[in-house]
Amino acid sequence: MQILFLGTGAGMPSKQRNTSALALKLLEERGAVWLFDCGEATQHQILHTTLKPRKIEKIFITHLHGDHIYGLPGLLGSRSFQGGDEPVEIYGPPGIKEFVESVLRISRTHLNYTIHFIEELEGVIFEDDLMKVTTAKLDHVIPSYGFRIEQKPLPPKLLIDRARDLGVPKGPLLAKLKSGKDVTLDDGSIIRSKDVTEPGQPGFVVTILGDTRFCRSAVDLGQHADVLVHEGTFDSSTEKLAGEYGHSTIKEAAETAKQANANTLIVNHMSSRFLPEDEKQLVKEMRDVHEQAFIAHDFDEFEWKINERRLKRI
Amino acid sequence: MQILFLGTGAGMPSKQRNTSALALKLLEERGAVWLFDCGEATQHQILHTTLKPRKIEKIFITHLHGDHIYGLPGLLGSRSFQGGDEPVEIYGPPGIKEFVESVLRISRTHLNYTIHFIEELEGVIFEDDLMKVTTAKLDHVIPSYGFRIEQKPLPPKLLIDRARDLGVPKGPLLAKLKSGKDVTLDDGSIIRSKDVTEPGQPGFVVTILGDTRFCRSAVDLGQHADVLVHEGTFDSSTEKLAGEYGHSTIKEAAETAKQANANTLIVNHMSSRFLPEDEKQLVKEMRDVHEQAFIAHDFDEFEWKINERRLKRI
Ligand SMILES: [Zn+2]
Ligand SMILES: [Zn+2]
Repeated sequence: MQILFLGTGAGMPSKQRNTSALALKLLEERGAVWLFDCGEATQHQILHTTLKPRKIEKIFITHLHGDHIYGLPGLLGSRSFQGGDEPVEIYGPPGIKEFVESVLRISRTHLNYTIHFIEELEGVIFEDDLMKVTTAKLDHVIPSYGFRIEQKPLPPKLLIDRARDLGVPKGPLLAKLKSGKDVTLDDGSIIRSKDVTEPGQPGFVVTILGDTRFCRSAVDLGQHADVLVHEGTFDSSTEKLAGEYGHSTIKEAAETAKQANANTLIVNHMSSRFLPEDEKQLVKEMRDVHEQAFIAHDFDEFEWKINERRLKRI
Repeated sequence: MQILFLGTGAGMPSKQRNTSALALKLLEERGAVWLFDCGEATQHQILHTTLKPRKIEKIFITHLHGDHIYGLPGLLGSRSFQGGDEPVEIYGPPGIKEFVESVLRISRTHLNYTIHFIEELEGVIFEDDLMKVTTAKLDHVIPSYGFRIEQKPLPPKLLIDRARDLGVPKGPLLAKLKSGKDVTLDDGSIIRSKDVTEPGQPGFVVTILGDTRFCRSAVDLGQHADVLVHEGTFDSSTEKLAGEYGHSTIKEAAETAKQANANTLIVNHMSSRFLPEDEKQLVKEMRDVHEQAFIAHDFDEFEWKINERRLKRI
């Protein structure tokens, strides 16, 4: 799993940072990419990466502000034009369907695939054998959501040598043992699954939040997450503005990560008022509260390896 | 007057060319910029120029395809955010108002200025003391328009020395003479305006076309234009595709310029199938038909000086 930041700015594009978008690359896990938010020119940013728009399986929209959605129609159109024909699911607040459908209708854009819209954002919004996605409402000036993406524990590993030593023959019994069931051999002896398997490793938990003030549900969504992606539009010197405009300071992002016992914090949605030379001070502000923390820049990529159980900038 | 190409590609953005947008800079003429089409990330392109979004007075949309309009909501929002408070006129085919208004409504974007929409595109759509804009429908797969922008002749120049020699005193009589009226002096002698003025120089004519097949109205709109901006999505080897998709070849663009007796042709809306190394051949194809011709690239700028009466790349 990799997290690739495509746009880490707030409100408007600048030369340094584009508006919000983030790709959760699940290519090894499920051969797919999940996109979180899609500000204007997200497809332009993708041109400078190895991402293939047709690999995008799901798009999650945290809220309907323009800096989080204006790139969606263009990306969807180009995905079709470039040969994408698999369906896409779009999860977003009520209004996202009307937005996409009216823009595509007015611009006479025909897609070679279908879009399923999920506008009911409450609790578990997706679950299959591999992943589970839970959502909750945050605290912004308009409805804004966070998403907690949990990878299911990996399947248990069969200890093949030990099974053979216990007399299990090659064939379907091995599969049964691997799937957690005990089996009886021809000689009447019972082999227990737990004796010939190693439990599967737990998966990752990534929490990606939309624009928000410091709030309880951010902490809840981020509980023990391996990675918490949190906005940090303001700093301590502009704390008052943060509250007024429904945003957080970088310190509040760190406070959320700390209270949630999240492992790694990555802060995005940075105001263009911050200059590159301010970054050192911002990082300090954040690490004073939560040590394992990064500020994201466009095209920053982080990788999570199951054996290391820790996110690394790559 | 300068013409600044902000996006010269077709259909989708590529690393070389963004989707359609062009700024007609009328800063000396009327302290304003007129924008023609606004593909996604036009505001991003503007970040790399000296253009000020608040100086944009009018936006002309040739047709509703996504590669010509998806950048409009973001640009309008940023114009407001950056302090723009003067009204904007948007001229475009029916549907442009619904597009802008529904996107701004759904994304809760409030502008600090009003937009006037003009969706009736027929004949003269704008005229004041300085300029006149005429429009006509072209031949594309959806309604697509071209715009002919005519600068009015400059005011006559008062030959102040000659007026003084004829006994005209300083003051209001001079202004009267300049404005074209004859005057009678205190001694009863009549001074004719034409004897003490030089006629104003004619203004420029710029014709900017939307996506189109070769058609009569393109030739009509371009009659004796100083500059004709024409799409050239295909070349001779793909002529059949051009017709099918409602586009022109570069050679057809040159043919239009020739038949219209236009001075300078600039071709935009280039397919990404053309590689930089193809350009020499494309230019030849075009100049075989119409000598004074250019292929536009993103950020190319051309200047028209009234005394030289000719467009130059700057
Ligand atoms: Zn935002
Ligand atoms: Zn086009």
